[in-house]
Amino acid sequence: MGSPDEQIHPVATGAAAETAAQHQTPQDLIFYSGWFCPFVQRTWIVLEEKGIPYQYKEVNPYKKEKHFLDINPKGLVPAMEYQGKALYESLILCEFLEEAFPKYKPQILPSDPVDRAIVRIWVDHITKFFVPAYQRLLSAQEKEKQEGYLEELNQTLRKLTDHVKGPYFLGDEFSLVDVAIAPWVLRDYVISEHRGYTRIGVGAAWKAYAENLEKRPSVAKTMSQREYLADIYGRYLRDEAQSEAAKAIRAGRTIP
Amino acid sequence: MGSPDEQIHPVATGAAAETAAQHQTPQDLIFYSGWFCPFVQRTWIVLEEKGIPYQYKEVNPYKKEKHFLDINPKGLVPAMEYQGKALYESLILCEFLEEAFPKYKPQILPSDPVDRAIVRIWVDHITKFFVPAYQRLLSAQEKEKQEGYLEELNQTLRKLTDHVKGPYFLGDEFSLVDVAIAPWVLRDYVISEHRGYTRIGVGAAWKAYAENLEKRPSVAKTMSQREYLADIYGRYLRDEAQSEAAKAIRAGRTIP
Repeated sequence: MGSPDEQIHPVATGAAAETAAQHQTPQDLIFYSGWFCPFVQRTWIVLEEKGIPYQYKEVNPYKKEKHFLDINPKGLVPAMEYQGKALYESLILCEFLEEAFPKYKPQILPSDPVDRAIVRIWVDHITKFFVPAYQRLLSAQEKEKQEGYLEELNQTLRKLTDHVKGPYFLGDEFSLVDVAIAPWVLRDYVISEHRGYTRIGVGAAWKAYAENLEKRPSVAKTMSQREYLADIYGRYLRDEAQSEAAKAIRAGRTIP
Repeated sequence: MGSPDEQIHPVATGAAAETAAQHQTPQDLIFYSGWFCPFVQRTWIVLEEKGIPYQYKEVNPYKKEKHFLDINPKGLVPAMEYQGKALYESLILCEFLEEAFPKYKPQILPSDPVDRAIVRIWVDHITKFFVPAYQRLLSAQEKEKQEGYLEELNQTLRKLTDHVKGPYFLGDEFSLVDVAIAPWVLRDYVISEHRGYTRIGVGAAWKAYAENLEKRPSVAKTMSQREYLADIYGRYLRDEAQSEAAKAIRAGRTIP
């Protein structure tokens, strides 16, 4: 007996399944993934972007195996096992990959300290304002609330877009800002179909930036087929999801 | 006419006033501070810890001056002006100082990438769980809620303390984890006097760690006198504060 979330499709599909299949050989770096999770995808994008050798392991976060919980008591994905230690938190893992594998390019943070701080400021904007706005919009049931949250989400994206140089956030270089937002770009069709969101409603610059992000190979090849996501998103759209993010938003708490 | 928060004491006092007085000469790096703010104190601790040359400027965040808003439209403190650019967010500023002034010691992040990630994981724990727990406990009005939030706060501190090697988080080296929590250690007398918190109630290891943190010179010399904080904390304790953090907690939103 378990929550309905335990019944999700167990493995990646489509392009993501092909990518996962290419990373089954044991490596020093083990990547614990949940194919459907946008936070996981951030870390996966960086692994693929840099071409770092890794072993892909699918974890059903609602049915966690003992070894996974032993190394990572918090039990969240994404997680990594490296030199016998467990690391977690999507953005911390992205910075870890940058620091632990400096020879693997591209660097996702600029070299200048001021520019690095600016990248982190906009990643922080995505974390603090965009992601909670997306979760609230997704789970809102009343029309009036949905409209308010949609406007809030659009505002967070307009603020970000004002600083996008194009084609990517920093210009030609793909950076941590692009990594941090890309998984939600791939999933914005859900709020288009159910919550009245449109890319052009945010603005033409956002629409262009979003299209550039979804075309980036590291982004496209870490995404599963939409049909398998429908079941998961159905729970969010009916406000029945039991993920940590869903529970946090319902309780007015920080997404863990 | 303004909100009552505009009437706060305008400048640092005690040890912090002496430190501020030593940093009035123009420098390439301008530090925009609010003497009472624990987030500001994090950045101030790192400046003092490393001995980086900086110019201290007090900002009343409820009465922001034009130049400050011009460079930093978000208007939050702590902020910095460096090479004509405005940077903000306390922890981003701490990492910026580490990267922009590598010759100034101590380094607040270890050199090993795994250890750096572990430091960031515990800083993230403080951000996501401890700080909101402190804010909720402070502003809770009913006895029953206060008791629940106190237990929650104690749990977040026990989890952290389990990983403290002593005297500091990493052992002898003072790191970003210590920086991230120290300002709340200095302010925990407020929840001791009004919400039933005790250090020993968290545990003996926490009490010892907290005492080590408050004795660290960079921590002690960036703290103002308690009597001037009483007025500010009175508003939080009556749930009347209008700061961004107070409003966020009231609305069940992320602290910006």
